[in-house]
Amino acid sequence: MRPALNTAVSESVDQQRGLVESLFEQLEQSSRDEPGVTRAPYGPRETYAHDLMKTWAEALELVIQSDSAANTYMTLPGSDRTLPPIITGSHLDSVAHGGNFDGAAGVVAGLAAIAAIKRMGLKPKRDITVMGIRAEESVWFQVSYIGSRAALGTLPDGALDVTRVDTGRSLADHITETGGDPRVLRRGEPYLDASKIHAFLEVHIEQAPSLVEAGVPVGICIGIPGNFRYPNAKILGRYDHVGTPRRFRRDAMMAGSELAMALDHIWEENEKAGQPMAVTFGRFHTDTSVHGMTTVPGEFHFSLDVRAYASEVLSEVEARFHATIKIIEQRLGVNFQLGPRAEAGVGEVSPRILKALDAAAAALGISTMRLGSPASHDAAAFAKAGVPMAMLFVRNENGSHNPDEAMEIDDFLKAVAILTAWLVDESCESSTD
Amino acid sequence: MRPALNTAVSESVDQQRGLVESLFEQLEQSSRDEPGVTRAPYGPRETYAHDLMKTWAEALELVIQSDSAANTYMTLPGSDRTLPPIITGSHLDSVAHGGNFDGAAGVVAGLAAIAAIKRMGLKPKRDITVMGIRAEESVWFQVSYIGSRAALGTLPDGALDVTRVDTGRSLADHITETGGDPRVLRRGEPYLDASKIHAFLEVHIEQAPSLVEAGVPVGICIGIPGNFRYPNAKILGRYDHVGTPRRFRRDAMMAGSELAMALDHIWEENEKAGQPMAVTFGRFHTDTSVHGMTTVPGEFHFSLDVRAYASEVLSEVEARFHATIKIIEQRLGVNFQLGPRAEAGVGEVSPRILKALDAAAAALGISTMRLGSPASHDAAAFAKAGVPMAMLFVRNENGSHNPDEAMEIDDFLKAVAILTAWLVDESCESSTD
Repeated sequence: MRPALNTAVSESVDQQRGLVESLFEQLEQSSRDEPGVTRAPYGPRETYAHDLMKTWAEALELVIQSDSAANTYMTLPGSDRTLPPIITGSHLDSVAHGGNFDGAAGVVAGLAAIAAIKRMGLKPKRDITVMGIRAEESVWFQVSYIGSRAALGTLPDGALDVTRVDTGRSLADHITETGGDPRVLRRGEPYLDASKIHAFLEVHIEQAPSLVEAGVPVGICIGIPGNFRYPNAKILGRYDHVGTPRRFRRDAMMAGSELAMALDHIWEENEKAGQPMAVTFGRFHTDTSVHGMTTVPGEFHFSLDVRAYASEVLSEVEARFHATIKIIEQRLGVNFQLGPRAEAGVGEVSPRILKALDAAAAALGISTMRLGSPASHDAAAFAKAGVPMAMLFVRNENGSHNPDEAMEIDDFLKAVAILTAWLVDESCESSTD
Repeated sequence: MRPALNTAVSESVDQQRGLVESLFEQLEQSSRDEPGVTRAPYGPRETYAHDLMKTWAEALELVIQSDSAANTYMTLPGSDRTLPPIITGSHLDSVAHGGNFDGAAGVVAGLAAIAAIKRMGLKPKRDITVMGIRAEESVWFQVSYIGSRAALGTLPDGALDVTRVDTGRSLADHITETGGDPRVLRRGEPYLDASKIHAFLEVHIEQAPSLVEAGVPVGICIGIPGNFRYPNAKILGRYDHVGTPRRFRRDAMMAGSELAMALDHIWEENEKAGQPMAVTFGRFHTDTSVHGMTTVPGEFHFSLDVRAYASEVLSEVEARFHATIKIIEQRLGVNFQLGPRAEAGVGEVSPRILKALDAAAAALGISTMRLGSPASHDAAAFAKAGVPMAMLFVRNENGSHNPDEAMEIDDFLKAVAILTAWLVDESCESSTD
C-alpha cells in the first residue's frame, strides 16, 4: 500500500469514532442487566443487537441477509460477485452479566471498516461481508459457537435438541422463535460453502491483560486453543456429621479440592515447559439445597474447561486428569460421575494472513504483538472448516465475561484501521485468489 | 449393685422395647421430609416431638414443666426434693434432611430409664429429670445449643437477635411463638442453677462408626471437642474469561481449594501426632447466581468448623489457618473476608461418673469402649457451667446428620440399661451428694 492510502485509511477510520461510540452506547443500554450486560443467545436482547447493526448496514446500503440459524450477513458487494468473499465479524450474544464488548466489538469493527472503505471511495473486487453471529457463548446451551457452526453445516449431532440452561427450552425452539428454521439445519445444509470463502477475520477484545501488560494496543492472533470440557460433573461421597473422624469420611468437597489442586499443578508444570494452557472450574460447589455448616458434604458439583494450543497437550492433560480421579476415588472412597464431555479442536491461523496483518500494522505505524488467543472463538469454527482465518485482539484492561471490560475506543480504532487496510489489500487491489 | 438388681434392670429396660419402637416411629412420621427428617428448632415439628414425649411422661405420672426457652422438663420426684437433681436428656430438633435419632434418642432413653425404674418399684431419693432440649443444631441460627444455654443462663450476647437461616426471623420471635419468653432470657436469669445439679447425662447416637468398626454396642464418652467456626466466610478474587492465563488470574475457587488442602494437611499431621481433630467445610461453593462454565470464579463462599479435644490444639490450628490465608492472599491476589467467628470450649467429662458408667456396664455384662465425642453436644454446655457431665454413645452405622442413621434398638436398650443402672446407683441407693 502506498503511504497516501495508509493516511486515508487512518483518517477514514477515525471519522467513524462518533458512530462507533454511539453504537456501543446503544448496545449497552439495550442489554443492561446489572452488574454488566446480558445478551442471551436467541433472546430479545441479542436480536435487538442484530437489528441495531442492520440499521447501520442499511445506512451504508449493504445487502442484508440472514440464514436458517438467524445469523446476519451485511455485504458490501464486490465488482465481481463470483469471487469468494471475505467474511469479518463476531458474535452478538454475551454471557450473563458480562461486558459490552466481547463479541459485539467484532461486528462493529467490520461495519466501521466498510464505512471507512466507502468513505475512501474504494470499490472492492470481491464481496466483503460483515457477519453478526448468533449464540457463541457456550454457557447457555453448553455447546460452543452454535451460530457459526450452523452456518458452516458443522453443528454437532443433537445440538438442536439441547436446552438453554435458563429457559429449559431447546435450541431448535429458540431458533424458530427468532425467525430461523431448524428443519434446514437438521438436514445439515450449510449456508456458507467453506471452500468458497476467501478468508475469515475476527476482531475481538483481548481476554487476558497481555496487551495491557505489554503496553501494546493491538494483538495479532497466532492460534485459538482447543479444549475438552465436562460441563456437569459431580462427585458422590457421603454426608456425615461434622465430627466424623478423617478415616471414616467420604468428603466430596475435599475430593473436589484435591482434583483442583492436582490440575493446577499440571497447569503450572506445562506453563514452565512453555506449553500454555488453562484450567477453569467455573462452577465448583456443594449442593446448595442441602449443605450446611455441620454436615460433611456428600456431593459436590463442578464444571471443567481445559484448553491448550496443541492437541498433544490436551490429550496428555486429560489422561492425567483421569489418572488423578482414580487415585482420589480410591483414597477418599468417593465416586466421580463426569457426565457429558465436549471438545473443540485447536484453531490454526493462516500464516499468509498473519503476515499480511503484520505488514498492514507496520505500514500504518500501529504497534502490535503476536498473541495466543486465551479463548475459543467463532474463528475456530471457520478454521476447522478449512477457511483461512485470522484474528485481531484489542487491548482490554479487565478481562472479558465480566462487567468491567475496559476497551479504549482509540485502541479499537487502531484494530479497525489494520482490518481496513487488510481488507483493501485483499479485496480492492488484488484481483485474483 | 447386687446381681438381682442387674437382672431386674435388664428385664425392665427390655420391657420398654415396644413403646420405644413406637415412639421412634411416631417421631419419624411426624417429621418426615424426604430425604430424611427435618425438625427445625422452634418449628412445629420440634414442638410436636416435645408434645409426644410429654404424652409418655404423663402416662408415667411425671411432673412436667417448661422454661422461658420452651425446653421441656419431665421429672420423677425424689423422696427428698431438696437434693440436687440428676438431669438426663438431649435435644429434639434436627438438621434439615437429617436422621430420626440424633438428639431424640437421648430423650427417649431418659423416659425409658424412668419407666424401667418405676417398673422395678424403685423410689429415687433425688429428682430425676428428663430434659427435652430446644435448638441444639447450630446450622439453623448459627449458634450452638441454644436451649441448654438458655436454661443455664449462658446464651451468648446477641443470640436472641440472630435469625433462622430459612425463615429470616429472629430467635426471640421464634421463642415467643413457641410459648417461651425471651424477655426473661434477655435478663440472663437461669432456669437451672448449675451449682445445684447433681449430674447431667446425655445418651446420643455415635456420629462416626467407631463402635461399628470395633463391634461394640455402647461407647462411654471421654470428652466433647471444642471448636472454632467461621459460618459465613468468603473469598473475593476477580471474575475472568475462561482463557485468562494463570499469571493474571485471581481465582477465588482455587484459593478455596488451596485452603482446604492446607487444613486437611494440618489435620493429617495432628492425627498422626495423636491429637484427634476434625475439619469440615460444610458449605463450599462458587456463587450459584452468577457462576458458569466459561468464567473464572471471582467469588467463593465457605463455612468452616474445626474441632479438637484440647484448647492448645485449637489455638495452634487457628494460628496456622490465618497464616495460610495470608500466604494464599499474597500469592493469588485474593482477599479473604472471614465474617463472624464462633467458638465452643472443650467439654470435660466427670471422671467419677465415667468410672461409675464403666462399673454399671461391667455389672450388666454390656461391652463398651471409651470414645471421644466427634461432635459438640448440649452436655458441653452443662460441663462448661460446672455440672458434672457424662455421655453414652449408641452404635450407629451411617453417621448422623443424614437420613441413613441406623441405630439398632438392641444397642439403644443396652445404653438405656447402663443409664438406668447408673440412675439407680446415683439416686436411689446413695443418699448424699
